[in-house]
Amino acid sequence: MADHTPPPRTPDDSRRPDVSRRSEKSRRAIYEAALSLVVELGYPKTTIEGIAARAGVGKQTIYRWWSSKADVLLEAFLDLGDQAARAAEEAGYAGEREPYAIADTGDLAADLKGVLRATVDELLDPKYDRPYRALAAEGVVDEELGRTFVAKLLEPSLQLYVDRLRAAQEAGQVRPEVDPRIALELFVSPLAQRWLQRTAPISHAYTDTLVDYALNGLAPR
Amino acid sequence: MADHTPPPRTPDDSRRPDVSRRSEKSRRAIYEAALSLVVELGYPKTTIEGIAARAGVGKQTIYRWWSSKADVLLEAFLDLGDQAARAAEEAGYAGEREPYAIADTGDLAADLKGVLRATVDELLDPKYDRPYRALAAEGVVDEELGRTFVAKLLEPSLQLYVDRLRAAQEAGQVRPEVDPRIALELFVSPLAQRWLQRTAPISHAYTDTLVDYALNGLAPR
Repeated sequence: MADHTPPPRTPDDSRRPDVSRRSEKSRRAIYEAALSLVVELGYPKTTIEGIAARAGVGKQTIYRWWSSKADVLLEAFLDLGDQAARAAEEAGYAGEREPYAIADTGDLAADLKGVLRATVDELLDPKYDRPYRALAAEGVVDEELGRTFVAKLLEPSLQLYVDRLRAAQEAGQVRPEVDPRIALELFVSPLAQRWLQRTAPISHAYTDTLVDYALNGLAPR
Repeated sequence: MADHTPPPRTPDDSRRPDVSRRSEKSRRAIYEAALSLVVELGYPKTTIEGIAARAGVGKQTIYRWWSSKADVLLEAFLDLGDQAARAAEEAGYAGEREPYAIADTGDLAADLKGVLRATVDELLDPKYDRPYRALAAEGVVDEELGRTFVAKLLEPSLQLYVDRLRAAQEAGQVRPEVDPRIALELFVSPLAQRWLQRTAPISHAYTDTLVDYALNGLAPR
């Protein structure tokens, strides 16, 4: 989630700790309300009014920070992605790394397997699976929503793979003529399709295999 | 669409050509009505009543042949897949081949590129794109529908890649330890994700690249 812009804060917050704490609590309640409603009702039936009611805040509080339902949900998903990244870090997947970068230990296969294993864990966790799925489903039919979420939520995380593959090209571990933006799809898209369309189960062994096939190729060497 | 079971026919049809012709005309009208309604209204709002009205047949005619809305749509999509396969054959993609098999000219890369190019053409054609997309979107949220359509519509077509990759393994063109059911995802899933989630454009050059990367691998040889 390299592209994450923090939610807007009122200028006074930083100088008034109590207000800041209250704002932070409201913000979190709004995110949770938005995600739970999108799971329960689907995107089309989720409203700012509904989010406000469930979060226990006034509609005005939401409109002060965000201009639309799509904006609230976008921020809620970015926050969810941050939580997942922190959880992955605590689980030791990423080792020492820049915030929002894929680890570069010099072992490309291991680094890709690590980040994909963390993604599998996230997709198998109902906390992440259910809202992501509700949003992805709506994005398939609602082209504008789909394009917004791909641009702001999915593409920035795909760019982390581009960066890691470029570093591997510089290290001579990936062929120089390979386009990293296409190459990443060899392991990211199969996982996405199995998850989204439930074509087959996902597991760490599965994503490890994808990385091995993608790096070494299907043809004999 | 290896798994395609022909739509049920009343036993008398074969002995009474006029009835058979009328039945065939009704069947086609029903398929077209079902596909156009799912595009216009989405799956949840498409009903047997609506399909019957648009097709100009009685509800009883539909219930005589199919037990549910999902069944009608499944047959309509199988028929659409048949039409696409015939169109691809006429366009010369498949060369001489078994019905519903991927060509085996001995050149694995060329054969995979051929079938993927035909799939790109199909996905870029609104006639196929719009109903497939409406159904795929519903399958993402409606787990039962999703699993039925994956099992009856998607998986049989993926098995054609499994067959072709197995033949390539026997010919020594794919490493023997590779699992063909996972391997095919290296080129099929990226196309599926770009199409379904509109993450980036699709083209013949793109799917050709996927095949080259998947067969040769990203790492230097």
